[in-house]
Amino acid sequence: MTEADADAVTAADVEAAARAIDGAVLRTPTIRAPALSEMAGCEVWLKLENLQDTGAFKVRGALNKLLSLDAAQRRAGVVTMSAGNHAQGVARHAGRLGIPATVVMPRATPFTKIERTEAYGAKVVLHGDSLAAAADHARHLGERQGRAFVHPFDDPKVIAGQGTVALEMLADMPDLDVLVVPVGGGGLIGGMALAAKSRRPDIAVIGVQAAAHASMRAALRGEAAPGGGSTLAEGIAVKSPGRLTLPLVRRLVDEVLAVPEATIEGAVHLLVERQKIVAEGAAAAPLAAVLGAPQRFAGRRVGLVISGGNIDGRLLASILMRGLSRAGRMARLRIEIDDAPGALARTAEVIAKGGGNIIEIFHQRLFMDVPVKMAEVDVLVETTDRGHIADIVTGLQRAGFPTRLLRGTAEEE
Amino acid sequence: MTEADADAVTAADVEAAARAIDGAVLRTPTIRAPALSEMAGCEVWLKLENLQDTGAFKVRGALNKLLSLDAAQRRAGVVTMSAGNHAQGVARHAGRLGIPATVVMPRATPFTKIERTEAYGAKVVLHGDSLAAAADHARHLGERQGRAFVHPFDDPKVIAGQGTVALEMLADMPDLDVLVVPVGGGGLIGGMALAAKSRRPDIAVIGVQAAAHASMRAALRGEAAPGGGSTLAEGIAVKSPGRLTLPLVRRLVDEVLAVPEATIEGAVHLLVERQKIVAEGAAAAPLAAVLGAPQRFAGRRVGLVISGGNIDGRLLASILMRGLSRAGRMARLRIEIDDAPGALARTAEVIAKGGGNIIEIFHQRLFMDVPVKMAEVDVLVETTDRGHIADIVTGLQRAGFPTRLLRGTAEEE
Repeated sequence: MTEADADAVTAADVEAAARAIDGAVLRTPTIRAPALSEMAGCEVWLKLENLQDTGAFKVRGALNKLLSLDAAQRRAGVVTMSAGNHAQGVARHAGRLGIPATVVMPRATPFTKIERTEAYGAKVVLHGDSLAAAADHARHLGERQGRAFVHPFDDPKVIAGQGTVALEMLADMPDLDVLVVPVGGGGLIGGMALAAKSRRPDIAVIGVQAAAHASMRAALRGEAAPGGGSTLAEGIAVKSPGRLTLPLVRRLVDEVLAVPEATIEGAVHLLVERQKIVAEGAAAAPLAAVLGAPQRFAGRRVGLVISGGNIDGRLLASILMRGLSRAGRMARLRIEIDDAPGALARTAEVIAKGGGNIIEIFHQRLFMDVPVKMAEVDVLVETTDRGHIADIVTGLQRAGFPTRLLRGTAEEE
Repeated sequence: MTEADADAVTAADVEAAARAIDGAVLRTPTIRAPALSEMAGCEVWLKLENLQDTGAFKVRGALNKLLSLDAAQRRAGVVTMSAGNHAQGVARHAGRLGIPATVVMPRATPFTKIERTEAYGAKVVLHGDSLAAAADHARHLGERQGRAFVHPFDDPKVIAGQGTVALEMLADMPDLDVLVVPVGGGGLIGGMALAAKSRRPDIAVIGVQAAAHASMRAALRGEAAPGGGSTLAEGIAVKSPGRLTLPLVRRLVDEVLAVPEATIEGAVHLLVERQKIVAEGAAAAPLAAVLGAPQRFAGRRVGLVISGGNIDGRLLASILMRGLSRAGRMARLRIEIDDAPGALARTAEVIAKGGGNIIEIFHQRLFMDVPVKMAEVDVLVETTDRGHIADIVTGLQRAGFPTRLLRGTAEEE
């Protein structure tokens, strides 16, 4: 187990990485977040790696690895596997440095991700139905073609590159008490913990995983990894930690927390609504953790890594709409009316008098579960809060229109 | 016209404002935007006032004005009129300084804006059907109650406070060639131009207005203000420039551009999709201007003020969906099928084989404009681009299903 040796990466490697990549990646800001601080009851600072070139921190590790290759290796090119931010990170800097790069992605990868990666000049190969199958194929290609494999996290150069995030946070805000970091394979938190604890041994470093994919947390506890499943935080949905990263995290990270899916969604929404930034699911997980355990962070200076902003536009739109619905700012009502002229107009009038703003209306005159001679109207109404919704429903019922609140797209809290 | 004297505000006032408000407002970052730079063909830098406390730059001027009041004035309290960011700016700092504040808003103001303003401790009075009516009432209240009126832009202290944005941009990025600034009443650009031209007489300062509300541009040209109308950039939809700001802008601003509504919407979308930030319409106008006149900015170092991020969640969701539709990443198809078992399944199969992902389906068995025995299906499909949409339509037609592309929510380009 020589590679997994505890000294495979050191704080000095992170400092060296910072010098190596300086100027070629963005120096992203660490900012104070007053509204979120008030909500969380602690002093929240955000490291905005969503503003990083390619929209995620992954360029740091990828570039540091590419710079470590010798001339022959650069000529031979590199191969990697990723359906996400690592792919763009490698493609971006391989393209810039003139190193041929092949990125293997699973067949079901969304078109935009393929397109962005190709736009940076990499060749994309679609292979297999899972990340594991794509990874096997990438290694196979690498061996056959004599190309270096750029691992997304389990590589000393990659870990050292990601660790530079901590150096910048501490340079901008030297007296942070805690760093809260998303954890997938463990490259980011491993490198950050090395750098941060070397400069500030008293600082706490806390990892966050999506509950359904908390493989690092399980490994640290000697438990089996959870079953997986759909998650918003696909960037940190990793089956098992690395051979290098697991011992690093065990040695240097204070704790790895797991957050439920609904709180990740809530945090993405909050970051848009109150902080005016776009964070992908993985990047919102630290905020979900802090809001989910306020007593743990109370009164402390807490630095959260907003690791990336690459979230699908349709997904983000749906999170915004669900957020409005959860807050009672939108409601879907089903109203029974007589199938007679004027009935629809009267319901619209009752809603308007109640201060509701009708956004969408769907009038179905033939429906199975209402008596003949009755019709149903589904209405999407803009409201101010849940009390307002209740008032509008009461108003409709008093006017003789049986009405019920549909759950719409949002789950009830 | 002593107040409107050209020396009512000076660069020294902006420097003094910077010292006065230091520490009480956020020092927001000025960041490089690589993806937007590539698109625009110039070096784009963004001043992120959307990250400012309350989500907009308006706190700067409001606080500088409040700090200029003497003890008796502070006890008496202040009054202002705003349905937007200025309201929150005044409320935020009046609350913090213990100055009673009343904010008059037009009756139709959205509930969230009222709520946020009240949350900072201000009293909100709803009055009138327009901003002008609300402003009259606010002045009237101020005179009757002996309270200072905090004008949203036409006040030397407010102008000086807003100007601090330029000082920070030049401190972070001293060799910017151009500043591009949203213009409503002219307080922000007036203060910024004073500060910037005093430090860097060679710098260009360019204003941007929404075409339908380009009142400053019209005033500079001696033309009548345009008619107005609905705009995404409500933060800069101001009927006429101020008595102080107009001469300032005439003297110091190189040009005021007007951008059409559709390009503002496109810029809001682009800032989410490629830059991972949330900008309100007014704040996206500078990007719309730069992308709309690339030859003018080619190769230069251009600093854009992202003046605020307060955009309604539902509006933002709809901009994201329209953006996807414009890019051909989503299409609404209307398909005619036989009203017979299995027909629906077959269309779904054809779409799936063509690589389209069905998001929503609406099957209407009774519809006026299809022959008896026929039915229609409306399908919302996720696609990769416009060519892909055309392929799916062709595939359906070849399989015997007359299909047409509905315009959906997006206007065609």
